[in-house]
Formats: sequence, structure tokens, C-alpha cells
Amino acid sequence: MGMTMTQKILAMHVGREFVEAGDLLVSQVDLILANDITGPPAINEFEKIGRPVFNKDKIALVPDHFSPCKDIKSATLCKQMRDFARKHNISNYFEVGRMGIEHALLPDKGLVAPGEIVIGADSHTCTYGALNALSTGMGQTDIGCAMASGTTWFKVPAAIKVELTGKLPKYVKGKDLILTLIGMIGVDGARYQSLEFTGPGVAELDMSDRFTICNMAIEAGGKNGIFPVDAKTEAFLKGRVTRPWTAVEADPDAVYERVVKIDLSKLVPVTSYPHLPENTHPVSESHHIKIDQVVVGSCTNGRLEDIAQAAEVLKDHKVNENVRCIIIPATQEIYQEAIRLGYVDIFINAGAAVSTPTCGPCLGGYMGILAAGERCVSTTNRNFRGRMGHVDSEVYLASPYTAAASAVKGYIASAEEVLG
Amino acid sequence: MGMTMTQKILAMHVGREFVEAGDLLVSQVDLILANDITGPPAINEFEKIGRPVFNKDKIALVPDHFSPCKDIKSATLCKQMRDFARKHNISNYFEVGRMGIEHALLPDKGLVAPGEIVIGADSHTCTYGALNALSTGMGQTDIGCAMASGTTWFKVPAAIKVELTGKLPKYVKGKDLILTLIGMIGVDGARYQSLEFTGPGVAELDMSDRFTICNMAIEAGGKNGIFPVDAKTEAFLKGRVTRPWTAVEADPDAVYERVVKIDLSKLVPVTSYPHLPENTHPVSESHHIKIDQVVVGSCTNGRLEDIAQAAEVLKDHKVNENVRCIIIPATQEIYQEAIRLGYVDIFINAGAAVSTPTCGPCLGGYMGILAAGERCVSTTNRNFRGRMGHVDSEVYLASPYTAAASAVKGYIASAEEVLG
Repeated sequence: MGMTMTQKILAMHVGREFVEAGDLLVSQVDLILANDITGPPAINEFEKIGRPVFNKDKIALVPDHFSPCKDIKSATLCKQMRDFARKHNISNYFEVGRMGIEHALLPDKGLVAPGEIVIGADSHTCTYGALNALSTGMGQTDIGCAMASGTTWFKVPAAIKVELTGKLPKYVKGKDLILTLIGMIGVDGARYQSLEFTGPGVAELDMSDRFTICNMAIEAGGKNGIFPVDAKTEAFLKGRVTRPWTAVEADPDAVYERVVKIDLSKLVPVTSYPHLPENTHPVSESHHIKIDQVVVGSCTNGRLEDIAQAAEVLKDHKVNENVRCIIIPATQEIYQEAIRLGYVDIFINAGAAVSTPTCGPCLGGYMGILAAGERCVSTTNRNFRGRMGHVDSEVYLASPYTAAASAVKGYIASAEEVLG
Repeated sequence: MGMTMTQKILAMHVGREFVEAGDLLVSQVDLILANDITGPPAINEFEKIGRPVFNKDKIALVPDHFSPCKDIKSATLCKQMRDFARKHNISNYFEVGRMGIEHALLPDKGLVAPGEIVIGADSHTCTYGALNALSTGMGQTDIGCAMASGTTWFKVPAAIKVELTGKLPKYVKGKDLILTLIGMIGVDGARYQSLEFTGPGVAELDMSDRFTICNMAIEAGGKNGIFPVDAKTEAFLKGRVTRPWTAVEADPDAVYERVVKIDLSKLVPVTSYPHLPENTHPVSESHHIKIDQVVVGSCTNGRLEDIAQAAEVLKDHKVNENVRCIIIPATQEIYQEAIRLGYVDIFINAGAAVSTPTCGPCLGGYMGILAAGERCVSTTNRNFRGRMGHVDSEVYLASPYTAAASAVKGYIASAEEVLG
């Protein structure tokens, strides 16, 4: 009986030859993450322990959620985290102006490598599975304890194998894949399981697609999402990660609870209707849905490739007069590169607002909150009731291609309908 | 007995040869302004009257204060104003992504010309005096009534003449002039009076300086601030205003309550300490004040020239590690031009955050709110207690040169100290 990718990473970390689903382990972790919302309560727990941080280089603190601060409460939380970072000389504290959305920033900064374990006080920490890491969100108490001990406990997860074949059609992206998958298995379809992506289709997915897909593993209830390492992974890591790392592959006889097969060539642009990511519908059947706002950004789809896709659609087109289109590059580096490549110029010509990096609207923070009755097409990860504002507003999840096309049309539309 | 510039505009509008301070008049107005905070209550008053808008082309509505919306309340207000603009087919409604801070946007869009009367439900409506207009802030009820009638009432203001001579030294700008003036006469020094700027020194001031100066007339209690028209004014208006306009000059025997003489060559970089704009101190005596944040932007100092000055300082320099530096171009056009000129690239290299146009932090809205004990050097117009966040935070008003230099140093400093 073999092990999944996730199980192998756990076995490696605890020095065992074999672990299986359901085992309880205490493992060293390679990186611990918290943000301006979750960091302060984690710090409060940490301070009860009364010990120094286990390693000042293995804690990342990113004020990305409600920052640049949206109100006095968020300013107070940010200040607490900043003071903590200074006191403990945390190497990877990222200040406003030098930061980005955590799940885009950390891989870009080389803080995550294959085979590593990353835990974060944020549910979308699962993003880094795109780099063959075991990464997962945890509660603030767990994070506070881990900041002191450098360890945490795991119940070894069972897994679902997602076997990918074929090649994505034009204008169909990782976001369409993961929304389709969640539509198939449901928002609790992978509860406390690893979503392990394999098969020849993996090579057809860009790294940005893989980050998007792993980012939303939690939206199917998954403990984590994970991809194997290939040439694209290595190209991403080159120049970013200089320390040695060990990639893991699943054993041929690894145990999977379930196998889901997806032929990428059969996928179409989709959008998840309110109020669950599993309410997946083809964009082609959604033209009747008029919209008020579009958001392109977030830890799910704020990478340069995502911004590029929005620019491809908005070039030589205008945002519909009834729509506010808000574009948020995920990090300062992505923002700068988007400027260099002319994307920001395209957005401003199109009549879109371009924000400094922030999670902002995704979780109803700021920078595009919805009033009652308003509808938004968003590249973010959750469309729960009231997620982006008023309890009677609606969020439709989609890819940057679809979001930008919808901004042009004023209703839910695909990039093909704008670009032909 | 002659008339001031302001009095002449009023006389022109009511068809009288002569008006004097204290006269009560009802006058036509040329433009009425409201924003996302003040617009909705003005609309509520308007709707009680039950008449159509007096002129759909002479009302400007700008969702700039808490927009892109920072919360459900602001989204609800924005929606009300947007719905009103659609219902009444308001020509000059500026949507998110196509907007900017009202007092930078309206002159740039050619909506203000010399000799015109502009009233706005915003105290800094006085900004447009830089264009030889009579512009002033009013309450929401006045604005609501004016949207129906196209008229409003005025008590003709008395005036202070500010006679300018000399030429500004390097790194000394309009902001230093107005902060120095308010320091001289106090925050009620021009109460319900016009601040009329004249003398050979006027020609030495750029339009951006004049906008900044008139913007803060209200901070001395002024009814309005106003400049005469010269070649720089005409250059600004060219290509922006195509309708005919009539410039006004004060009569040689105009009555002024007071004459204040300022030799521009004697001015130095200054900063206004908390919690009043009149607490003006030389920057050279303020090095002991360590800071946490810098804001460059607002209706006072968010124009291209202001952004350029910040870029001049931040080029080849880094924002101090203890400082968040937030830069907010005032309009989409300024933002785009700042990108084209490489300023935004400089800001990102320096470690500053660049926001989409918004009033945001100036009035404690969002995008850089302060926690207790934090200090900010800001190019905005008010440093009242709690203005930018916690009641125990502090705001120091300054020019973009001084603000950017302070961001580099981590304490209040002048551009000369950074650039030599």
C-alpha cells in the first residue's frame, strides 16, 4: 500500500517510512503564516505561552486583508502585528507598500518549496499545493502555538485523485476547472481530504492555473490541494527558491477514496451562482444576469497571468456604463509588471479602477462593497451570502476572462463573445 | 467705492452694477456639486420639492469620498446617488473607474470657468477660485433646493486682500504659502470673507499651487478664495473650457477689511501640527517628530504636479522601513499620466502604495486609517483630532515635497534634506 503526495510529505517530516489516512502526527513545519485579521489573535495565544518565536525566519506576517487600513479597528490590529514583528525581528513581515496578497506574495518571494509544510491562519493557505507543498489553513490558536514550538498536529488526510487529460480550450482557465470540479463534488465533497491533481493534463496547466485550483481546494472542503512538480514548477522556482527541496510523487499504489476524471478539452467557461461555489453554470446559459460590478483580483486570481487575461479582453473595449470594474493586482511586483506591460493603461482607458494590492472586496472588507440588490462577477473564491457586502447582494464567481468580458457586456459573458 | 473679484461675480450674476459686503442676494449658479456623502441627503431634500432638476448639465455628482465603496453604508449611499443620476439623466455623473476627487476632476473636465458661480455640498468647493470662479461649499439642504431652482442665496462677503510679491524658493510650494497664511490669521481669520490673492507674486505660482491655496481658504474660515486670471490660467483653460467666459479683476478702490502681504521669497517649508491647520511650524524645527505614515493626495495636493514632486523626492530613495507611504493620484487621468511619466514605477520601487483615486484617508474614510498613537504627515487639508483615524492619532499637514521627504527620513524633513 503506497502513499499520496500529501502523505509522503508528512512521512518525510516525521521521519517515518509510512503514514496512512487517519494517523495522528506532530510535525515540524517549514513556514507559518498569518495576516492582519488572524495574526493578532494568534499572537495573543502565542503570548500566553511566554516563549520566544521558534524561528524568526519561518514566520510570515502580511497585512493584506484590510490594509492600507480601512478603519480604526483594522489599524489597531495592524499595529499589533507590526509591533510584534519588530519585537521578534520577524524577517518576513511585509509592510504596506512592500507587500501583496499573502498567497500570491509568499510563492513569489520564494518562501514555499516542494515537499515543505506550510500552515497559515487563513483558509486559502492551501494555495501553495501548486508548488507540491503541503499547505493548509488552521485556527489562530494552532498558529499561535506553532509560532512558539515550530510544530503542529495533523490527522493524515485521505485523498481524492483528480486525473486530468486533454488541453484547455481557448479562454478556459484553471478557475473554470476548479469551479467545475466543485460543481461535481460539492462544497463538502473533499472534506478533510487532499485533492491531488495528476495525469497528462497537468502539463497543460500554467502555474497561475495551478495556484487558482489549489487555492479553491478548501471550497470543496479539502484539507489541501496539491500538484506534482514538472518543468513549469521548476521554471517558477528558479531564481526564487535557492535552498534544496525534495519533490514528492504519489506511489502507484497510493490509496485514494475516489478518482475524478476531467478531460480539460471538454471544459467551458463557467460561473458559480450565489450563494455557493458549487452552483456552477455555463457562462453561455447566464446571459440574462445583468451585473453592477466586476472584481478581478484576490489570492485566487490576482496574478500577472490573470491581470493579463483581463487586459486582453479590455484592450480596445470599454467597461459598460452600468458597471464598476475594479482590478487589483495581487502584489506590488505584479502591479509594477502590469504597468510595464501596459495593462494598467488599458484598464484606465477602459474605465476600470486599479487598486493597490489588497484582499479588500473579496471578504467584504472595502474597495468595492455591494449595496442591496447589486450583483458582482468576481474572480474571488467565495460567493457566500453577504460575502462582498449587503446580505441581499450577489456574487458570481468566474475567471478573469469571464469577469472582464462581463464588465464589457454588462451581463455575464465569455471572453469569446467580446474577442471573437 | 469699488468691488472685489468675488463681489463682481455676484453683481454680474444678479444683473446689478454694484453689490457690497452684507447685501443679501439670490443668484443663478453655473454648477452644483455633490458627492457620495453629501449627495444623498441633498437628493432627499430635492425630492421633497417634487420638481425636475433645473438643468441636467449643470449638476456634477462624484462618488469620491468612500468609493470604491468601503462598506455597506457607503455602497447604499452611492447606489442612491447613481440611481438619481440615471433617473434624471445627469450628464456629469462620474462612475468609479471613470472618476476622480471632485475638486481635481471638475476643473480638469472643463466644468469650471472664470467668473462662474459654483456651489457644492463640500466645504472644499472653494478650490475653483484658482480659476477666478466664485465657488463655495454649502449645506445639503441648500444644494438640494438649488438642484431644483438653479439658484441660491448669498450674503455678499467682505474680503481680505493677500498681496503676493517675490518668487517661491526651491522646494517651497503653494501648500507652504497657505499653511503660513493660516498660521498668520488663524482658522477663523477669514470667517465668511473672501481671500483674494493679488500682486506680482501671483504670476510665480503654478495653477496647482493656486488650487491648493484656494482649496484651503475654508481652513481660515473663508467663504471663498480667488485668484485673478493670467497667462497660466488661460493655458489651463485652453482645450478644457470652450464656452465663453468673463474674467473679473478687483476694482482699484475695492474695499478690503484687511491686507496681508506675503513675500514668497521669504517662505520656508512648513508643517501644521495637530490639531489645527493654524499650528504652523517650520519643517526645520520639526525633525524630532517621528512618523508612521505619509499620505500624498487629496483635493488639496493630488494633482499631477504634486505627484511629480513626490516622485522627484522618492526617485532613488526608499520609504523608511518604519513608514507606510500611500500615494493617491486625484483622478484617473492624473493616475494614467503619472504612470506614463514613470512616477508610479518610482513609487513602487521606493516601497510606496499607490491607490486608485479616492478621498479615502483624508477624512478617516479608508485607505490608511491611523491607530492610537500613530503620526501621519499628510498633504491633505485638515488635521483635526481624529480626522484620519483614532482620536489619539496625529496628522501633520505639509506639501508633497515635505511629505515625501518625511517618508524617506522617517521623521518630518524637507525635500532639501533628501535631495540636497
